[in-house]
Amino acid sequence: MEKLKKYVSVKDEDDFYHQGAVELLIFNFLLILTILTIWLFKNHRFRFLHETGGAMLYGLVMGLIIRYVTKSPDIESGTVYECERLKSGPSTLLINITNQVYEYQYKREISHHNVNGHQGNAMLQKMTFDPSIFFNILLPPIIFHAGYSLKKRHFFRNLGSILAFAFLGTAISCLVIGLIMYGFVKAMVHIGQLKQWEFHFTDCIYFGSLMSATDPVTVLAIFHELNVDTDLYTLLFGESVLNDAVAIVLTHSISTYSPKENPNAFDAAAFFQSVGNFLGIFAGSFAMGSSYAVVTALISFMHLTKFTKLCEFPMLETGLFFLLSWSAFLSAEAAGLTGIVAVLFCGVTQAHYTYNNLSADSKMRTKQLFEFMNFLAENVIFCYMGLALFTFQNHIFNPLFIFGAFVAVFVARASNIYPLSFLLNLGRKQKIPRNFQHMMMFSGLRGAIAFALAIRDTSCQPQQVMFSTALLLVFFTVWVLGGGTTPMLTWLHIRVGVDPDEDLKAKAGSQSASNFDKNTTKAESAWLFRIWYGFDHKYLKPLLTHTGPPLTSTLPEWCNPVARLLTSPSAYGDQLKDGDTVYIINNDELAENCESSAHTPLPAQDSTGSIQATGKEDIQEGDLGLGGYKLQLQHPAGQLQKNSLA
Amino acid sequence: MEKLKKYVSVKDEDDFYHQGAVELLIFNFLLILTILTIWLFKNHRFRFLHETGGAMLYGLVMGLIIRYVTKSPDIESGTVYECERLKSGPSTLLINITNQVYEYQYKREISHHNVNGHQGNAMLQKMTFDPSIFFNILLPPIIFHAGYSLKKRHFFRNLGSILAFAFLGTAISCLVIGLIMYGFVKAMVHIGQLKQWEFHFTDCIYFGSLMSATDPVTVLAIFHELNVDTDLYTLLFGESVLNDAVAIVLTHSISTYSPKENPNAFDAAAFFQSVGNFLGIFAGSFAMGSSYAVVTALISFMHLTKFTKLCEFPMLETGLFFLLSWSAFLSAEAAGLTGIVAVLFCGVTQAHYTYNNLSADSKMRTKQLFEFMNFLAENVIFCYMGLALFTFQNHIFNPLFIFGAFVAVFVARASNIYPLSFLLNLGRKQKIPRNFQHMMMFSGLRGAIAFALAIRDTSCQPQQVMFSTALLLVFFTVWVLGGGTTPMLTWLHIRVGVDPDEDLKAKAGSQSASNFDKNTTKAESAWLFRIWYGFDHKYLKPLLTHTGPPLTSTLPEWCNPVARLLTSPSAYGDQLKDGDTVYIINNDELAENCESSAHTPLPAQDSTGSIQATGKEDIQEGDLGLGGYKLQLQHPAGQLQKNSLA
Repeated sequence: MEKLKKYVSVKDEDDFYHQGAVELLIFNFLLILTILTIWLFKNHRFRFLHETGGAMLYGLVMGLIIRYVTKSPDIESGTVYECERLKSGPSTLLINITNQVYEYQYKREISHHNVNGHQGNAMLQKMTFDPSIFFNILLPPIIFHAGYSLKKRHFFRNLGSILAFAFLGTAISCLVIGLIMYGFVKAMVHIGQLKQWEFHFTDCIYFGSLMSATDPVTVLAIFHELNVDTDLYTLLFGESVLNDAVAIVLTHSISTYSPKENPNAFDAAAFFQSVGNFLGIFAGSFAMGSSYAVVTALISFMHLTKFTKLCEFPMLETGLFFLLSWSAFLSAEAAGLTGIVAVLFCGVTQAHYTYNNLSADSKMRTKQLFEFMNFLAENVIFCYMGLALFTFQNHIFNPLFIFGAFVAVFVARASNIYPLSFLLNLGRKQKIPRNFQHMMMFSGLRGAIAFALAIRDTSCQPQQVMFSTALLLVFFTVWVLGGGTTPMLTWLHIRVGVDPDEDLKAKAGSQSASNFDKNTTKAESAWLFRIWYGFDHKYLKPLLTHTGPPLTSTLPEWCNPVARLLTSPSAYGDQLKDGDTVYIINNDELAENCESSAHTPLPAQDSTGSIQATGKEDIQEGDLGLGGYKLQLQHPAGQLQKNSLA
Repeated sequence: MEKLKKYVSVKDEDDFYHQGAVELLIFNFLLILTILTIWLFKNHRFRFLHETGGAMLYGLVMGLIIRYVTKSPDIESGTVYECERLKSGPSTLLINITNQVYEYQYKREISHHNVNGHQGNAMLQKMTFDPSIFFNILLPPIIFHAGYSLKKRHFFRNLGSILAFAFLGTAISCLVIGLIMYGFVKAMVHIGQLKQWEFHFTDCIYFGSLMSATDPVTVLAIFHELNVDTDLYTLLFGESVLNDAVAIVLTHSISTYSPKENPNAFDAAAFFQSVGNFLGIFAGSFAMGSSYAVVTALISFMHLTKFTKLCEFPMLETGLFFLLSWSAFLSAEAAGLTGIVAVLFCGVTQAHYTYNNLSADSKMRTKQLFEFMNFLAENVIFCYMGLALFTFQNHIFNPLFIFGAFVAVFVARASNIYPLSFLLNLGRKQKIPRNFQHMMMFSGLRGAIAFALAIRDTSCQPQQVMFSTALLLVFFTVWVLGGGTTPMLTWLHIRVGVDPDEDLKAKAGSQSASNFDKNTTKAESAWLFRIWYGFDHKYLKPLLTHTGPPLTSTLPEWCNPVARLLTSPSAYGDQLKDGDTVYIINNDELAENCESSAHTPLPAQDSTGSIQATGKEDIQEGDLGLGGYKLQLQHPAGQLQKNSLA
């Protein structure tokens, strides 16, 4: 008896493994389809449905199949059992069923009205995986890659505007969406669609904050392919990267804003506490991320006399790089900060310092590894979004709320872009032209972050309404706005086929004509960044990398013994290496620096000489993103030329 | 009220995310420590504790800390609740606790005597992760990498012996361990330590099958570093790779062997059904794995007129390669076959066909990606094994059983290696010398696979006894046998510092002196493989890759129209490309082939010319395994020389 029973149980567990395999297989299948589709699209130069849109579409179809084709073998799961002896839900529950003890693990809390909808399909439940997988595993590589592949030169050139759009713009967007939604909620109460208590003002603001994370991955991919004007690209890229971080911290701060008495009344103390929270979490996460990167830089830089350098072992170096960057995310999460912000700045700092210390082999390896992980994670998320429309079981589609959200999102985007552009243009030497503003307005896509924030908590009805609405907004913006990018570019007469370096030099040249001097550049980059760059160039770069002037020449004389100890031997005599630092100081040396740095021999000696040069040039561009192909579009007619494959 | 409650729940869920982050962070921390240790060891040329041993040690210490330092906040979890209304454990359970519904997910079945041991530490429970993660996520990259990095030339040279050790040897080992353990169990029953019904003969055989998976990852890493004699390396590598597959299928077949009446009696029908199962599952998995690889080869080979080849997009190519290989594993699991076997042969086939079609960039990418994933997965598993000793909550350490297992494992290894070597030496031209046999005997380490098989089911007492014993055996063999590898090599006077190519030529030369002719090689590789190689060279290679003679010349004349359609244009005129195929036909052309193929231009054109050559040479060696460093040991004194870093 015991025997037979045991083997039955083994068989059951085997079934469980097979189930896990089936779910993973479904995702693999969707990804394979997506890749084949991308290949097809690339061949036909089809740009009206981007790969992410395609992934979403396949997910949608698969969700439909799972929902309506698979049977529901698990009828028990709709029943609710009473348990009088417990006070709260423990993380593990042991249950005695017909003399056999089963262990159950806490999954989530669900509200009463969802219990009925729960009857049925075990497959659907399996396909809706744990939101913590999004946060801990899928998002970090995407965000890290964004930070690691930041085009630093162009980014810092537009830093002021980017910060304004990311911080002020996101706050405006959050507030505008919140206010409009509150109006709609009031109207819904008025016509009797909602009971008063269901939606508070804080819920509306919460919705505003999560819908403020723009994610123009589709748009940027097209921009990159078409070589759209670099300033526009940088503005949108910088905004979307930072704005994800801002939106996440904002969402977190709002969810901790709990006024003491009436949830609808404005509580100044709670508000300031939230603002304090926001600043504290942002600063803490920033510090956490950067310090992990600095540790990585120091480890990879170490050249103790008895030790072979770590860069002699590319595999260990890559492993350490990967693990420390991921740890930055996890530590921030574990400490109650925001991992996304930490990993973003970790990526930026890694690219700035650690990358210079890596061996040529590791440069290639890390670049390709993060690119690959980004690619997979992104497509998994978009597939999953498609799946979620049919497999998620607690959707609440409220037509008025959805309509309101569409209106709110577009009004909020407009009241973010146009007023801020106007204000920024007052101060900018290089104005943001009208057509750029329209394009930025148009590129306000919502994607992975908005979805991940919305799915994080779907236990109550308001959250479920918000989740369903957010999902529809993501679908609409990715398919309609994403698909409309190429026509929109043509229609707005935006320059395409621009070489970033040429562009930079041309713009610099057009400003100051022939007598180009240091003051122009200095005036352009704000004083704060000049100070930072001086400090970085003189002290941090020599301390953390092999580049920059030796510390012995930059530190005061009495520090000499320490300075000599801390400076890499290779730092003496090649101060011209670090192209982008020098750039901030003096713009017109740039071209020569780029060339010279591409040919300076790097410390590691191996046979792949040509990688070194490629690697070096790449990071100066920061272009780690898109698998090495380029398509050129003829300007301005928008006709497609033969693609020149790099 | 509702409001406050909602925010409390948000806070709870946040805590859950943070928990997930903490667990991942612990693993990250262990891996970082391991990498730093490896670096230290490499510097000090310390070879008595291998990285996997180090990872296990750190895991052990961390497990100790988690067990005795963390508090146990979750007192509820020891209580068993009765549920009369249910007949069996559903996959999801909804429980109403103080008017709030919680959803619980089925985790596992536990036996009554474990319920008490369950009281307490939630952290311990969190650290013991789902065994399906081992099977679906951590094992596939390790096994795939083993297949992908197979040194084909040396492997096929010793194929007969390898198959004998892997199939016959594993069966012998399984049976011997089973019989000895059954003796010990009888003795334990006799002295009253066990009740009769607890351990059946099938349980003993089950234990034998799971302990028969040798995993000499430590030994092979040291062999590789020291360039130990290639034949010995190949025999051990080939045996361990195939024997994992055999042991897994064997375990599966034995668990389905359920005699009708008395479980102790021998039931011929059930036995033959198990043997049939074994053969069916093995063949099915082999077919599944190879066909996925063939599909990958076909896709990457396709050159439709309207399409740019896939190899123009290295990222898509790498992605497809990765996903299809993983799908081979998942499909086999989902179909009730053995994923490990599927992914192993998928790896071998991918290396044989698909690799030749990849662009130079993708060759690098896939090689590094799989190497990296293998490295991470391996170290995660060994860390986890260390952790499991203290965090796993249902250990049963039975001293007599453990002693019996140690005896059984060594007796079984001896009765596998020595008799088989004797028999093989009767037929082998190149005998397996005495010291090689001793070394193979000594290298019978147990590792990841034995552990993964043992942890797969720990619901009953016999399984728990087996799991605890297997864990101790892994510890002992990895630390003691693994650490003793270098001294043992010296003691047995085994050649080190051997160049594989030189070695092969020298051995071939010594056999037939100056008048080396084709017949020697032909006689050495059995007739079955000559036929297979002829077929492969003439039909499969031209069909699936760009190498080999054009199909038009190998197929009968009436097939010409079809042949012309299927042959790659680049196949005409470069028949000398595929070094290892030609090798089987004629050994002494090898050196020239290697050189010529290393310099033949590959289809994809990019700037990294030197990678191409490296990539090409690498696959001919199949050496994708160990991050590009070499250590040389002076023979025979065993003194360590300065390491020459490649």
